[in-house]
Amino acid sequence: MLTYLNTEFVAADRAMLHVTDLAIQRGYGIFEFLKVRKGVPLFLNDYLDRFYRSAEAMQLNVPYSREALQQIIHELLSRNQAVDCGIKMILTGGYSPDAFSIATPNLVIQQYPLALSDAMAAGVKVITHEYVREMPAVKTINYLTGIRQLQRMHEAKASDVLYHQRGVVSEFPRCNFFIVNAAGELCTPSENILHGITRMNVLALARRQGTVKEGIVTLDDVWQAREAFLTSTTKRIIPITQIDEHRVGDGNPGAVTRALHRALVALEDEQLK
Amino acid sequence: MLTYLNTEFVAADRAMLHVTDLAIQRGYGIFEFLKVRKGVPLFLNDYLDRFYRSAEAMQLNVPYSREALQQIIHELLSRNQAVDCGIKMILTGGYSPDAFSIATPNLVIQQYPLALSDAMAAGVKVITHEYVREMPAVKTINYLTGIRQLQRMHEAKASDVLYHQRGVVSEFPRCNFFIVNAAGELCTPSENILHGITRMNVLALARRQGTVKEGIVTLDDVWQAREAFLTSTTKRIIPITQIDEHRVGDGNPGAVTRALHRALVALEDEQLK
Repeated sequence: MLTYLNTEFVAADRAMLHVTDLAIQRGYGIFEFLKVRKGVPLFLNDYLDRFYRSAEAMQLNVPYSREALQQIIHELLSRNQAVDCGIKMILTGGYSPDAFSIATPNLVIQQYPLALSDAMAAGVKVITHEYVREMPAVKTINYLTGIRQLQRMHEAKASDVLYHQRGVVSEFPRCNFFIVNAAGELCTPSENILHGITRMNVLALARRQGTVKEGIVTLDDVWQAREAFLTSTTKRIIPITQIDEHRVGDGNPGAVTRALHRALVALEDEQLK
Repeated sequence: MLTYLNTEFVAADRAMLHVTDLAIQRGYGIFEFLKVRKGVPLFLNDYLDRFYRSAEAMQLNVPYSREALQQIIHELLSRNQAVDCGIKMILTGGYSPDAFSIATPNLVIQQYPLALSDAMAAGVKVITHEYVREMPAVKTINYLTGIRQLQRMHEAKASDVLYHQRGVVSEFPRCNFFIVNAAGELCTPSENILHGITRMNVLALARRQGTVKEGIVTLDDVWQAREAFLTSTTKRIIPITQIDEHRVGDGNPGAVTRALHRALVALEDEQLK
Protein backbone atom coordinates (compact mmCIF):
# COMPACT_ATOMS: atom_id res chain seq x y z
CA MET A 1 0.00 0.00 0.00
CA LEU A 2 1.34 3.43 -1.00
CA THR A 3 0.63 6.90 0.37
CA TYR A 4 1.34 10.08 -1.55
CA LEU A 5 3.47 12.53 0.41
CA ASN A 6 4.15 15.99 -1.07
CA THR A 7 5.99 14.89 -4.22
CA GLU A 8 6.25 11.12 -4.16
CA PHE A 9 4.59 7.79 -3.48
CA VAL A 10 5.94 6.18 -0.31
CA ALA A 11 5.11 2.95 1.52
CA ALA A 12 2.09 3.78 3.71
CA ASP A 13 3.91 2.81 6.92
CA ARG A 14 6.72 5.23 6.03
CA ALA A 15 4.47 8.25 5.50
CA MET A 16 5.75 10.49 8.27
CA LEU A 17 5.76 14.21 9.01
CA HIS A 18 8.41 15.97 11.04
CA VAL A 19 7.22 17.10 14.48
CA THR A 20 7.65 20.77 13.50
CA ASP A 21 4.62 20.44 11.22
CA LEU A 22 1.92 22.93 12.16
CA ALA A 23 -0.69 20.15 12.47
CA ILE A 24 1.35 18.60 15.29
CA GLN A 25 2.39 21.93 16.82
CA ARG A 26 -0.90 23.83 16.44
CA GLY A 27 -3.58 21.53 15.06
CA TYR A 28 -3.53 23.55 11.83
CA GLY A 29 -4.70 21.83 8.65
CA ILE A 30 -7.60 20.83 6.40
CA PHE A 31 -8.68 17.59 4.78
CA GLU A 32 -11.14 15.79 2.52
CA PHE A 33 -12.41 12.24 2.44
CA LEU A 34 -14.01 10.76 -0.66
CA LYS A 35 -14.99 7.28 -1.70
CA VAL A 36 -13.94 5.18 -4.64
CA ARG A 37 -16.14 2.50 -6.19
CA LYS A 38 -15.00 0.23 -9.00
CA GLY A 39 -11.93 2.44 -9.30
CA VAL A 40 -14.00 5.63 -9.77
CA PRO A 41 -13.61 8.47 -7.24
CA LEU A 42 -17.25 9.54 -6.77
CA PHE A 43 -18.13 13.25 -7.06
CA LEU A 44 -14.40 14.01 -7.16
CA ASN A 45 -14.88 17.54 -8.50
CA ASP A 46 -17.17 18.46 -5.62
CA TYR A 47 -14.64 17.26 -3.05
CA LEU A 48 -11.81 19.07 -4.82
CA ASP A 49 -13.89 22.27 -4.92
CA ARG A 50 -14.30 22.14 -1.17
CA PHE A 51 -10.62 21.23 -0.63
CA TYR A 52 -9.50 24.37 -2.46
CA ARG A 53 -12.11 26.50 -0.65
CA SER A 54 -10.99 25.17 2.76
CA ALA A 55 -7.33 25.77 1.87
CA GLU A 56 -8.06 29.36 0.90
CA ALA A 57 -10.02 30.02 4.10
CA MET A 58 -7.03 28.73 6.08
CA GLN A 59 -4.47 30.66 4.02
CA LEU A 60 -2.87 27.45 2.75
CA ASN A 61 -1.56 27.05 -0.79
CA VAL A 62 -2.51 23.76 -2.42
CA PRO A 63 0.74 22.79 -4.15
CA TYR A 64 -1.01 21.29 -7.19
CA SER A 65 -3.58 22.28 -9.76
CA ARG A 66 -6.91 20.49 -9.77
CA GLU A 67 -5.83 18.46 -12.81
CA ALA A 68 -2.56 17.44 -11.17
CA LEU A 69 -4.39 16.38 -7.98
CA GLN A 70 -6.84 14.30 -10.01
CA GLN A 71 -3.93 12.64 -11.76
CA ILE A 72 -2.13 11.88 -8.48
CA ILE A 73 -5.30 10.33 -7.03
CA HIS A 74 -5.78 8.16 -10.11
CA GLU A 75 -2.14 7.11 -10.06
CA LEU A 76 -2.40 6.23 -6.35
CA LEU A 77 -5.45 4.06 -7.06
CA SER A 78 -3.69 2.45 -9.98
CA ARG A 79 -0.45 1.71 -8.11
CA ASN A 80 -2.41 0.36 -5.14
CA GLN A 81 -4.65 -1.66 -7.48
CA ALA A 82 -7.55 -0.17 -5.52
CA VAL A 83 -11.14 -0.80 -6.59
CA ASP A 84 -13.32 0.12 -3.60
CA CYS A 85 -11.74 2.34 -0.96
CA GLY A 86 -11.68 5.74 0.73
CA ILE A 87 -9.22 8.48 -0.21
CA LYS A 88 -8.17 11.05 2.36
CA MET A 89 -6.31 14.22 1.44
CA ILE A 90 -4.73 16.24 4.27
CA LEU A 91 -3.07 19.63 3.84
CA THR A 92 -1.22 20.92 6.90
CA GLY A 93 0.39 24.26 7.83
CA GLY A 94 3.82 22.81 7.01
CA TYR A 95 7.18 22.82 8.80
CA SER A 96 7.01 26.08 10.70
CA PRO A 97 10.36 27.48 11.92
CA ASP A 98 8.66 29.40 14.77
CA ALA A 99 6.00 26.72 15.40
CA PHE A 100 3.27 29.30 14.76
CA SER A 101 3.52 30.89 11.29
CA ILE A 102 2.13 29.12 8.25
CA ALA A 103 4.89 27.55 6.14
CA THR A 104 4.89 25.51 2.91
CA PRO A 105 1.99 23.09 3.39
CA ASN A 106 2.52 19.34 3.55
CA LEU A 107 0.16 17.28 1.40
CA VAL A 108 -0.75 13.70 2.36
CA ILE A 109 -3.01 11.46 0.28
CA GLN A 110 -3.90 8.20 2.02
CA GLN A 111 -5.97 5.26 0.96
CA TYR A 112 -8.33 3.69 3.51
CA PRO A 113 -10.34 0.48 3.40
CA LEU A 114 -14.03 1.19 2.86
CA ALA A 115 -16.75 -1.44 2.71
CA LEU A 116 -20.03 0.04 1.50
CA SER A 117 -23.27 -1.88 1.64
CA ASP A 118 -26.14 -0.93 -0.66
CA ALA A 119 -28.60 -1.96 2.07
CA MET A 120 -29.69 0.81 4.40
CA ALA A 121 -28.50 0.48 8.00
CA ALA A 122 -30.94 -0.08 10.84
CA GLY A 123 -32.15 2.93 12.80
CA VAL A 124 -29.69 4.35 15.33
CA LYS A 125 -29.82 6.37 18.53
CA VAL A 126 -28.02 9.71 18.77
CA ILE A 127 -27.50 12.10 21.68
CA THR A 128 -27.34 15.90 21.70
CA HIS A 129 -24.57 18.27 22.83
CA GLU A 130 -24.45 22.07 22.92
CA TYR A 131 -21.60 23.18 20.67
CA VAL A 132 -20.80 24.96 17.40
CA ARG A 133 -17.60 24.10 15.54
CA GLU A 134 -15.03 26.87 15.33
CA MET A 135 -15.13 27.32 11.56
CA PRO A 136 -18.05 25.06 10.66
CA ALA A 137 -18.03 25.78 6.91
CA VAL A 138 -14.34 24.86 6.57
CA LYS A 139 -13.17 21.25 6.70
CA THR A 140 -10.41 21.83 9.26
CA ILE A 141 -8.79 19.01 11.23
CA ASN A 142 -10.14 20.41 14.54
CA TYR A 143 -12.22 17.63 16.15
CA LEU A 144 -11.46 18.26 19.85
CA THR A 145 -15.10 18.25 20.90
CA GLY A 146 -16.21 15.39 18.67
CA ILE A 147 -13.50 13.11 20.01
CA ARG A 148 -14.10 14.13 23.63
CA GLN A 149 -17.79 13.21 23.20
CA LEU A 150 -16.94 9.62 22.16
CA GLN A 151 -16.92 8.38 25.74
CA ARG A 152 -20.34 9.89 26.54
CA MET A 153 -21.65 8.48 23.28
CA HIS A 154 -20.46 4.96 24.07
CA GLU A 155 -21.91 5.17 27.58
CA ALA A 156 -25.29 6.18 26.12
CA LYS A 157 -25.03 3.41 23.49
CA ALA A 158 -25.47 6.13 20.87
CA SER A 159 -24.03 6.20 17.35
CA ASP A 160 -23.39 9.91 17.09
CA VAL A 161 -23.65 13.32 18.76
CA LEU A 162 -25.97 16.01 17.37
CA TYR A 163 -24.68 19.55 17.96
CA HIS A 164 -27.05 22.41 18.78
CA GLN A 165 -26.70 25.94 20.14
CA ARG A 166 -29.47 27.15 22.42
CA GLY A 167 -31.80 24.60 20.85
CA VAL A 168 -30.94 25.36 17.21
CA VAL A 169 -29.60 22.17 15.65
CA SER A 170 -26.63 22.20 13.28
CA GLU A 171 -24.79 18.94 12.50
CA PHE A 172 -22.87 15.93 13.80
CA PRO A 173 -19.07 15.97 14.11
CA ARG A 174 -18.78 14.18 10.74
CA CYS A 175 -22.34 14.01 9.34
CA ASN A 176 -25.20 16.29 8.33
CA PHE A 177 -28.71 16.09 9.77
CA PHE A 178 -32.19 15.95 8.19
CA ILE A 179 -35.74 15.61 9.47
CA VAL A 180 -39.07 15.03 7.80
CA ASN A 181 -41.50 17.32 9.62
CA ALA A 182 -45.16 16.73 10.45
CA ALA A 183 -46.15 18.22 7.06
CA GLY A 184 -43.92 15.72 5.23
CA GLU A 185 -41.34 18.36 4.25
CA LEU A 186 -37.64 17.54 4.28
CA CYS A 187 -35.81 20.06 6.51
CA THR A 188 -32.09 20.48 7.15
CA PRO A 189 -29.99 23.11 8.97
CA SER A 190 -28.16 25.57 6.72
CA GLU A 191 -26.12 27.60 9.24
CA ASN A 192 -23.10 26.58 11.33
CA ILE A 193 -22.60 23.41 9.31
CA LEU A 194 -20.11 21.84 6.96
CA HIS A 195 -21.85 21.65 3.60
CA GLY A 196 -21.50 17.94 2.95
CA ILE A 197 -21.28 16.54 -0.57
CA THR A 198 -23.75 13.78 0.36
CA ARG A 199 -26.02 16.44 1.89
CA MET A 200 -25.92 18.32 -1.42
CA ASN A 201 -26.75 15.17 -3.37
CA VAL A 202 -29.62 14.27 -1.04
CA LEU A 203 -31.06 17.78 -1.34
CA ALA A 204 -30.93 17.59 -5.14
CA LEU A 205 -32.67 14.20 -5.12
CA ALA A 206 -35.31 15.36 -2.63
CA ARG A 207 -36.15 18.49 -4.64
CA ARG A 208 -37.35 16.25 -7.47
CA GLN A 209 -39.89 14.70 -5.12
CA GLY A 210 -41.26 17.37 -2.83
CA THR A 211 -40.72 20.40 -0.64
CA VAL A 212 -37.26 20.91 0.80
CA LYS A 213 -36.47 23.49 3.49
CA GLU A 214 -32.93 24.58 4.24
CA GLY A 215 -32.88 26.84 7.30
CA ILE A 216 -33.34 26.86 11.04
CA VAL A 217 -34.18 23.52 12.63
CA THR A 218 -34.82 23.60 16.37
CA LEU A 219 -34.85 20.77 18.90
CA ASP A 220 -38.61 21.38 19.17
CA ASP A 221 -38.88 20.70 15.43
CA VAL A 222 -36.86 17.55 15.98
CA TRP A 223 -39.15 16.28 18.76
CA GLN A 224 -42.13 16.71 16.37
CA ALA A 225 -40.43 15.08 13.38
CA ARG A 226 -41.88 12.06 11.59
CA GLU A 227 -38.44 10.90 10.42
CA ALA A 228 -34.81 11.84 10.97
CA PHE A 229 -31.58 10.73 9.33
CA LEU A 230 -27.92 11.60 8.97
CA THR A 231 -25.79 11.75 5.85
CA SER A 232 -22.08 11.37 5.17
CA THR A 233 -19.73 10.18 2.46
CA THR A 234 -19.03 6.87 4.16
CA LYS A 235 -22.43 6.37 5.82
CA ARG A 236 -24.63 7.62 2.97
CA ILE A 237 -28.01 7.80 4.76
CA ILE A 238 -28.60 6.30 8.20
CA PRO A 239 -32.07 6.52 9.77
CA ILE A 240 -32.24 7.97 13.30
CA THR A 241 -34.91 6.39 15.45
CA GLN A 242 -34.01 7.83 18.85
CA ILE A 243 -32.59 11.22 19.92
CA ASP A 244 -31.64 11.41 23.61
CA GLU A 245 -34.68 9.83 25.28
CA HIS A 246 -37.12 10.81 22.49
CA ARG A 247 -38.37 8.26 19.98
CA VAL A 248 -38.44 9.65 16.42
CA GLY A 249 -41.82 9.11 14.70
CA ASP A 250 -42.99 5.54 15.28
CA GLY A 251 -39.44 4.43 16.11
CA ASN A 252 -38.80 2.84 12.71
CA PRO A 253 -36.96 4.10 9.61
CA GLY A 254 -39.48 6.12 7.58
CA ALA A 255 -40.63 6.00 3.96
CA VAL A 256 -38.93 9.26 2.90
CA THR A 257 -35.62 8.12 4.38
CA ARG A 258 -35.86 4.77 2.60
CA ALA A 259 -36.75 6.37 -0.75
CA LEU A 260 -33.87 8.86 -0.51
CA HIS A 261 -31.44 6.07 0.37
CA ARG A 262 -32.47 4.12 -2.75
CA ALA A 263 -32.18 7.26 -4.87
CA LEU A 264 -28.73 8.07 -3.46
CA VAL A 265 -27.37 4.59 -4.19
CA ALA A 266 -28.79 4.88 -7.71
CA LEU A 267 -27.15 8.31 -8.15
CA GLU A 268 -23.78 6.84 -7.18
CA ASP A 269 -24.31 3.92 -9.52
CA GLU A 270 -24.88 6.37 -12.40
CA GLN A 271 -21.36 7.72 -11.84
CA LEU A 272 -19.95 4.28 -12.55
CA LYS A 273 -21.50 3.97 -16.01
CA MET B 1 20.61 18.47 18.75
CA LEU B 2 18.42 15.67 20.07
CA THR B 3 14.64 15.38 20.48
CA TYR B 4 12.98 12.88 22.79
CA LEU B 5 10.39 10.76 21.01
CA ASN B 6 8.28 8.32 23.05
CA THR B 7 11.08 6.11 24.37
CA GLU B 8 14.34 7.39 22.92
CA PHE B 9 16.51 10.32 22.03
CA VAL B 10 16.67 10.88 18.27
CA ALA B 11 18.38 13.46 16.07
CA ALA B 12 16.03 16.48 16.01
CA ASP B 13 15.68 16.39 12.23
CA ARG B 14 14.61 12.74 12.43
CA ALA B 15 11.82 13.31 14.95
CA MET B 16 8.84 12.27 12.85
CA LEU B 17 5.31 11.07 13.51
CA HIS B 18 3.37 8.81 11.20
CA VAL B 19 0.53 10.55 9.37
CA THR B 20 -2.06 8.42 11.20
CA ASP B 21 -1.30 10.37 14.40
CA LEU B 22 -4.43 12.01 15.76
CA ALA B 23 -2.72 15.44 15.82
CA ILE B 24 -2.32 15.26 12.03
CA GLN B 25 -5.68 13.59 11.42
CA ARG B 26 -7.80 15.54 13.94
CA GLY B 27 -5.70 18.27 15.56
CA TYR B 28 -5.90 16.33 18.83
CA GLY B 29 -3.14 16.95 21.38
CA ILE B 30 -1.80 19.03 24.25
CA PHE B 31 1.53 20.68 24.97
CA GLU B 32 3.65 22.71 27.37
CA PHE B 33 6.49 25.16 26.84
CA LEU B 34 8.90 26.06 29.62
CA LYS B 35 12.17 27.90 29.75
CA VAL B 36 15.59 26.82 30.92
CA ARG B 37 18.18 29.24 32.31
CA LYS B 38 21.68 28.17 33.29
CA GLY B 39 20.55 24.59 32.80
CA VAL B 40 17.64 24.95 35.25
CA PRO B 41 14.07 24.37 33.98
CA LEU B 42 12.20 27.22 35.71
CA PHE B 43 8.99 26.43 37.63
CA LEU B 44 9.14 22.90 36.19
CA ASN B 45 6.65 21.49 38.69
CA ASP B 46 4.04 24.07 37.77
CA TYR B 47 4.35 23.25 34.06
CA LEU B 48 4.20 19.51 34.77
CA ASP B 49 1.09 20.03 36.93
CA ARG B 50 -0.66 21.69 34.02
CA PHE B 51 0.62 19.08 31.53
CA TYR B 52 -0.98 16.26 33.55
CA ARG B 53 -4.19 18.29 34.05
CA SER B 54 -4.46 18.99 30.30
CA ALA B 55 -3.82 15.35 29.48
CA GLU B 56 -6.57 14.24 31.84
CA ALA B 57 -9.05 16.74 30.39
CA MET B 58 -8.28 15.35 26.93
CA GLN B 59 -8.46 11.69 28.03
CA LEU B 60 -4.77 11.16 27.20
CA ASN B 61 -2.49 9.00 29.32
CA VAL B 62 0.92 10.53 29.98
CA PRO B 63 3.23 7.55 29.49
CA TYR B 64 5.61 8.60 32.29
CA SER B 65 5.46 9.53 35.94
CA ARG B 66 6.34 13.08 36.92
CA GLU B 67 9.74 11.91 38.18
CA ALA B 68 10.48 10.07 34.94
CA LEU B 69 9.51 13.13 32.87
CA GLN B 70 11.76 15.36 34.98
CA GLN B 71 14.60 12.92 34.44
CA ILE B 72 14.05 12.79 30.67
CA ILE B 73 14.05 16.60 30.48
CA HIS B 74 17.27 16.81 32.46
CA GLU B 75 18.89 14.13 30.34
CA LEU B 76 17.83 15.94 27.15
CA LEU B 77 19.41 19.17 28.44
CA SER B 78 22.53 17.30 29.41
CA ARG B 79 22.92 15.46 26.10
CA ASN B 80 22.27 18.67 24.17
CA GLN B 81 24.65 20.58 26.46
CA ALA B 82 21.88 23.14 26.76
CA VAL B 83 22.21 26.12 29.12
CA ASP B 84 19.55 28.62 28.06
CA CYS B 85 16.70 27.29 25.92
CA GLY B 86 13.01 26.50 25.67
CA ILE B 87 11.61 22.99 26.19
CA LYS B 88 8.40 21.96 24.48
CA MET B 89 6.47 18.81 25.41
CA ILE B 90 3.72 17.64 23.06
CA LEU B 91 1.37 14.75 23.77
CA THR B 92 -0.84 13.68 20.84
CA GLY B 93 -3.80 11.35 20.45
CA GLY B 94 -1.49 8.69 18.98
CA TYR B 95 -1.67 6.43 15.94
CA SER B 96 -5.40 5.94 15.58
CA PRO B 97 -6.51 2.94 13.47
CA ASP B 98 -9.84 4.62 12.63
CA ALA B 99 -8.40 8.16 12.46
CA PHE B 100 -10.84 9.26 15.17
CA SER B 101 -10.50 7.26 18.40
CA ILE B 102 -7.81 8.11 20.93
CA ALA B 103 -4.92 5.63 20.81
CA THR B 104 -1.63 5.32 22.73
CA PRO B 105 -0.37 8.92 22.89
CA ASN B 106 2.86 9.99 21.22
CA LEU B 107 5.18 12.09 23.39
CA VAL B 108 7.60 14.58 21.84
CA ILE B 109 10.06 16.69 23.85
CA GLN B 110 11.84 19.30 21.75
CA GLN B 111 14.46 21.87 22.60
CA TYR B 112 14.11 25.37 21.13
CA PRO B 113 16.51 28.30 21.09
CA LEU B 114 15.42 31.00 23.52
CA ALA B 115 17.20 34.31 24.06
CA LEU B 116 15.85 36.13 27.10
CA SER B 117 16.80 39.70 27.88
CA ASP B 118 16.50 41.01 31.43
CA ALA B 119 15.57 44.44 30.04
CA MET B 120 11.86 45.07 29.62
CA ALA B 121 10.67 45.40 26.01
CA ALA B 122 9.32 48.69 24.67
CA GLY B 123 5.54 49.20 24.67
CA VAL B 124 3.63 47.40 21.93
CA LYS B 125 0.36 47.82 20.08
CA VAL B 126 -2.25 45.06 20.17
CA ILE B 127 -5.58 44.67 18.38
CA THR B 128 -8.81 43.05 19.57
CA HIS B 129 -10.83 40.14 18.15
CA GLU B 130 -14.11 38.59 19.30
CA TYR B 131 -13.40 34.96 20.14
CA VAL B 132 -13.22 32.47 23.02
CA ARG B 133 -10.94 29.44 22.72
CA GLU B 134 -12.71 26.09 22.61
CA MET B 135 -11.31 24.72 25.87
CA PRO B 136 -9.54 27.79 27.22
CA ALA B 137 -8.36 26.21 30.48
CA VAL B 138 -6.68 23.29 28.70
CA LYS B 139 -3.41 23.73 26.80
CA THR B 140 -4.57 22.02 23.61
CA ILE B 141 -2.77 22.40 20.28
CA ASN B 142 -5.81 24.13 18.72
CA TYR B 143 -4.63 27.55 17.45
CA LEU B 144 -6.77 27.92 14.31
CA THR B 145 -7.99 31.39 15.18
CA GLY B 146 -4.70 32.70 16.56
CA ILE B 147 -2.85 31.71 13.41
CA ARG B 148 -5.56 33.05 11.11
CA GLN B 149 -5.32 36.44 12.89
CA LEU B 150 -1.59 36.76 12.11
CA GLN B 151 -2.21 38.44 8.78
CA ARG B 152 -4.57 41.05 10.26
CA MET B 153 -2.07 41.61 13.06
CA HIS B 154 0.80 42.24 10.65
CA GLU B 155 -1.33 44.60 8.57
CA ALA B 156 -2.19 46.60 11.71
CA LYS B 157 1.49 46.55 12.78
CA ALA B 158 0.32 44.99 16.03
CA SER B 159 2.22 42.53 18.23
CA ASP B 160 -0.69 40.45 19.39
CA VAL B 161 -4.46 39.91 19.32
CA LEU B 162 -6.57 40.37 22.47
CA TYR B 163 -9.62 38.10 22.59
CA HIS B 164 -12.93 39.29 24.00
CA GLN B 165 -16.55 38.09 23.94
CA ARG B 166 -19.23 40.75 23.83
CA GLY B 167 -16.77 43.21 25.34
CA VAL B 168 -15.51 40.93 28.13
CA VAL B 169 -11.77 40.51 27.69
CA SER B 170 -10.05 37.13 28.19
CA GLU B 171 -6.52 36.56 26.85
CA PHE B 172 -4.18 36.55 23.86
CA PRO B 173 -3.60 33.38 21.81
CA ARG B 174 -0.41 32.68 23.79
CA CYS B 175 -0.31 35.31 26.57
CA ASN B 176 -2.37 36.54 29.53
CA PHE B 177 -3.58 40.10 29.96
CA PHE B 178 -3.41 42.60 32.85
CA ILE B 179 -4.43 46.21 33.39
CA VAL B 180 -3.81 48.73 36.14
CA ASN B 181 -7.13 50.52 36.61
CA ALA B 182 -7.73 54.17 37.47
CA ALA B 183 -7.61 53.29 41.20
CA GLY B 184 -4.17 51.74 40.75
CA GLU B 185 -5.42 48.17 41.22
CA LEU B 186 -4.00 45.32 39.16
CA CYS B 187 -6.86 43.52 37.33
CA THR B 188 -6.77 40.40 35.18
CA PRO B 189 -9.46 38.20 33.60
CA SER B 190 -10.12 34.92 35.38
CA GLU B 191 -12.66 33.24 33.06
CA ASN B 192 -12.17 31.75 29.59
CA ILE B 193 -8.40 31.85 29.91
CA LEU B 194 -5.45 29.55 30.10
CA HIS B 195 -4.03 29.97 33.60
CA GLY B 196 -0.46 30.90 32.70
CA ILE B 197 2.45 30.06 34.97
CA THR B 198 3.87 33.56 34.45
CA ARG B 199 0.41 35.00 35.20
CA MET B 200 0.39 33.03 38.47
CA ASN B 201 3.85 34.33 39.38
CA VAL B 202 2.94 37.92 38.54
CA LEU B 203 -0.22 37.70 40.66
CA ALA B 204 1.78 36.36 43.62
CA LEU B 205 4.30 39.18 43.28
CA ALA B 206 1.61 41.84 42.89
CA ARG B 207 -0.27 40.67 46.00
CA ARG B 208 2.75 41.61 48.09
CA GLN B 209 2.47 45.18 46.89
CA GLY B 210 -1.20 46.09 46.58
CA THR B 211 -4.71 45.18 45.57
CA VAL B 212 -5.14 42.50 42.94
CA LYS B 213 -8.46 41.75 41.27
CA GLU B 214 -9.08 38.55 39.34
CA GLY B 215 -12.45 38.66 37.59
CA ILE B 216 -14.32 40.32 34.79
CA VAL B 217 -12.38 42.88 32.77
CA THR B 218 -14.38 44.67 30.07
CA LEU B 219 -13.17 46.64 27.07
CA ASP B 220 -14.56 49.72 28.86
CA ASP B 221 -12.25 48.95 31.79
CA VAL B 222 -9.41 48.64 29.30
CA TRP B 223 -10.09 52.03 27.71
CA GLN B 224 -9.93 53.62 31.21
CA ALA B 225 -6.78 51.77 32.29
CA ARG B 226 -3.62 53.57 33.38
CA GLU B 227 -1.40 50.69 32.31
CA ALA B 228 -1.74 47.40 30.45
CA PHE B 229 0.64 44.51 29.87
CA LEU B 230 0.81 40.91 28.71
CA THR B 231 2.59 37.96 30.28
CA SER B 232 3.97 34.70 28.94
CA THR B 233 6.76 32.24 29.61
CA THR B 234 8.94 33.51 26.78
CA LYS B 235 7.89 37.19 26.88
CA ARG B 236 7.74 37.61 30.67
CA ILE B 237 6.03 41.03 30.88
CA ILE B 238 5.57 43.29 27.86
CA PRO B 239 3.93 46.72 28.32
CA ILE B 240 1.00 47.49 26.03
CA THR B 241 0.78 51.13 25.03
CA GLN B 242 -1.88 50.94 22.32
CA ILE B 243 -5.01 48.77 21.93
CA ASP B 244 -6.74 49.15 18.56
CA GLU B 245 -6.79 52.94 18.12
CA HIS B 246 -6.79 53.68 21.85
CA ARG B 247 -3.67 54.91 23.64
CA VAL B 248 -3.17 53.20 27.03
CA GLY B 249 -2.57 55.74 29.84
CA ASP B 250 -0.02 58.32 28.72
CA GLY B 251 1.25 56.00 25.98
CA ASN B 252 4.34 54.89 27.88
CA PRO B 253 5.10 51.77 29.97
CA GLY B 254 3.85 52.47 33.50
CA ALA B 255 5.43 52.27 36.94
CA VAL B 256 3.49 49.18 38.09
CA THR B 257 4.42 47.29 34.92
CA ARG B 258 8.09 48.20 35.35
CA ALA B 259 8.13 47.20 39.03
CA LEU B 260 6.47 43.85 38.30
CA HIS B 261 8.93 43.16 35.49
CA ARG B 262 11.87 43.73 37.85
CA ALA B 263 10.25 41.55 40.50
CA LEU B 264 9.58 38.75 37.97
CA VAL B 265 13.18 38.69 36.75
CA ALA B 266 14.31 38.60 40.40
CA LEU B 267 11.92 35.72 41.12
CA GLU B 268 13.38 33.74 38.23
CA ASP B 269 16.91 34.53 39.41
CA GLU B 270 16.04 33.09 42.83
CA GLN B 271 15.33 29.74 41.15
CA LEU B 272 18.92 29.65 39.90
CA LYS B 273 20.51 29.90 43.33
